[in-house]
Amino acid sequence: MKSPLRIGVAGLGTVGSAVIRIVGERAAALEASVGRPIIVTAVTARDRSRDRGVDLSGVRWHENALSLAADPEVDLFVELIGGADGAARLAVEAALAAGKPVVTANKALIAARGQDLALKAEAAGVALAFEAAVAGGIPIIRTLREALPASRVTRISGILNGTCNYILSRMEEEGLSFADCLADAKRLGYAEADPTFDIGGFDTAHKLAILASLAFGTRVDADSIYIEGIANIESLDLATADELGYRIKLLGVATRTDAGIEQRVHPTMVPKRSALAEVMGVTNAVAIDGSAVGELTLVGPGAGGDATASAVIADIMDVARGAVRAPFGISAADLEEPVRAPIRTHTGGYYIRLSVVDRPGTAAAIATRMAEQDISLESILQRRPKGRKALETAEDSAVPLVLITHATTEAAVRRALDAVMADGHLGCAPQVIRIEKE
Amino acid sequence: MKSPLRIGVAGLGTVGSAVIRIVGERAAALEASVGRPIIVTAVTARDRSRDRGVDLSGVRWHENALSLAADPEVDLFVELIGGADGAARLAVEAALAAGKPVVTANKALIAARGQDLALKAEAAGVALAFEAAVAGGIPIIRTLREALPASRVTRISGILNGTCNYILSRMEEEGLSFADCLADAKRLGYAEADPTFDIGGFDTAHKLAILASLAFGTRVDADSIYIEGIANIESLDLATADELGYRIKLLGVATRTDAGIEQRVHPTMVPKRSALAEVMGVTNAVAIDGSAVGELTLVGPGAGGDATASAVIADIMDVARGAVRAPFGISAADLEEPVRAPIRTHTGGYYIRLSVVDRPGTAAAIATRMAEQDISLESILQRRPKGRKALETAEDSAVPLVLITHATTEAAVRRALDAVMADGHLGCAPQVIRIEKE
Repeated sequence: MKSPLRIGVAGLGTVGSAVIRIVGERAAALEASVGRPIIVTAVTARDRSRDRGVDLSGVRWHENALSLAADPEVDLFVELIGGADGAARLAVEAALAAGKPVVTANKALIAARGQDLALKAEAAGVALAFEAAVAGGIPIIRTLREALPASRVTRISGILNGTCNYILSRMEEEGLSFADCLADAKRLGYAEADPTFDIGGFDTAHKLAILASLAFGTRVDADSIYIEGIANIESLDLATADELGYRIKLLGVATRTDAGIEQRVHPTMVPKRSALAEVMGVTNAVAIDGSAVGELTLVGPGAGGDATASAVIADIMDVARGAVRAPFGISAADLEEPVRAPIRTHTGGYYIRLSVVDRPGTAAAIATRMAEQDISLESILQRRPKGRKALETAEDSAVPLVLITHATTEAAVRRALDAVMADGHLGCAPQVIRIEKE
Repeated sequence: MKSPLRIGVAGLGTVGSAVIRIVGERAAALEASVGRPIIVTAVTARDRSRDRGVDLSGVRWHENALSLAADPEVDLFVELIGGADGAARLAVEAALAAGKPVVTANKALIAARGQDLALKAEAAGVALAFEAAVAGGIPIIRTLREALPASRVTRISGILNGTCNYILSRMEEEGLSFADCLADAKRLGYAEADPTFDIGGFDTAHKLAILASLAFGTRVDADSIYIEGIANIESLDLATADELGYRIKLLGVATRTDAGIEQRVHPTMVPKRSALAEVMGVTNAVAIDGSAVGELTLVGPGAGGDATASAVIADIMDVARGAVRAPFGISAADLEEPVRAPIRTHTGGYYIRLSVVDRPGTAAAIATRMAEQDISLESILQRRPKGRKALETAEDSAVPLVLITHATTEAAVRRALDAVMADGHLGCAPQVIRIEKE
């Protein structure tokens, strides 16, 4: 029998505790699969006294992650602390410098320092694995890294944040307001006390940056992502989307375009019959468009202790098996510098909801402003949507006017709306939601 | 630079031609990823003269697959001939005996002889990879083999045959008959001239047997699968399912039950909002229930030259990288003999459509027969379904009576229906469709 793989786990939150529990429960199956025992030998966490529901007797306790990473009886360092800097980064760097493989669930760290850490791992000849950093239990990292060599990936899009999808799903299904759904999500533990990172789209952006790097062979480029959160979405938008055959989802989308790589995170109208539209609640999903494979969609739990531990343990097993893959599929030194396509060059359909002062000729004046920018309209809706009892706009005399455009550019839409605003037709700022037809 | 990986491809149909074309087109990317060139050096096919749209100059032509497998300049044998026996099997065995890794898309071969071939591959210390054998471009084999070590898989279900899903989708969407849709599928190349293998459920059964083996660590057991095809499904069933909030799909389902491993292929009513229900047309999908991961669903193209080549090439790249995994995840010698749960112990809800003679008291008499078997009914429908213009039953006096049961056993349903038939209430044989709530 081969020597055991001795694991040190830094961070004992829900995920860390689940990793320790499952590695214990499935010890026999894991050993049978790789021919060597998998053992957690050492841990560290902020609070030693807390009961985590797992047996830590016989497991060495370290005062901090750096000390854990340096433990000569730790073969593999599992980082579940989180954060782009500080203890997590220092300990991961120390482990790699000591020639130890690293498994991490830390999306912020990989989004900020992925290429640098990958270079260090490759120099040390060890694995740096981060399946758990994106979309919880969905094996999207290994799918991009190993399952699609035949395809040039042209697009990757996903529902990558369970909190946002939960809120949008409930708003749609129950006609509730954003604020009410957010309060419920907090109560149920689906949203943090400070939910900005989730609902502002930043969490989705970190994950998207990692996926785009793997999909396109480019350096992780989290800074250039266009980001809009979901806080401005109103029930009226969801109801109107429903009437038009769409759902609204917070998507992360990365596409190869003629102008370069476009990365964006924003509320998006997707056709009801599309794979992503059907994903409700805290579930995540990722869709990949590849030249050979066509469209492939993976749907599963995006968070939760056990599901995330599932991804961590799959990475641990790769290490146990001796697999050392370039963390981003190709050598980190060969990752290309991405040409960034700015959001203004984005081409697609748009949903534009205006709160217009109810005067004759207003719709015609607005349509003219659109035409001046060569924007052609697929439809114009001026009726009050089903089930809406009262207008929610500031002025009682204002009525909602919804425009759906054919494919146009972001720049054209912004110029047209600037002109409409300057004309004084609007009761408040326009609501703009991009449409993804596929 | 490492030495090239020299591939021999046996079988130059749509998939073989696509493999050769894509390996050529993506030569640089493939080489960059594994650090060695991937080259097709030799091929064989029935008809040498046919134009396949790929450049075969410089590729050695063999008269048969055995000779190709023996070629000393072939490092990896790719079998795309098909069939559980004959040339495919002999050549695969010869390649393994010669210590050469094998990549195959042959579901019939793996379903019939998977364990035996895996033993041979393990004895030779080489890979036997068959990602392309199940669900085309969907990376389901590697997901089961590598991504879910933390989970005890309890259930795997899927839409594994594009022909059937295409036919059922069109029947539902356009209200067409089975015969009309099948004729269209043939015309469009989605169905073979002899479609029995697809529409009879046998193709799905082969694939299910392979998935069940990987999911449960049991020997591939294709012979014990309960199989029903889709030829008896009528538009009336699809319309009634729609009214009740369901779609009808041909599913392959393998479950761990108290009675053992249940493997079944049959038309199934699935709730419209479920991941599998939304899969329309020739697309395939596989859903996995695992203890740690929860529910994971993969959706993508189940057939087609490029999508299947995508899976073949992913396997080729694993071989190029030197990865040698046990074909079924664990040593083939350790695959357990499955305890087979017979279909009569299956527990679930049932849709039962009876064509009853329209006499007072008939419904009550039938309900009594159900009650005698402890079957409790969720609903009884006796109205003519929406959009149905004329009754399709044999007798004009017969009316459709639809029963939806709560969870019960197959044995109870069969006993109850035997009694109902003996009572002489039916105009023709009952239609029975199992319901999967998840």
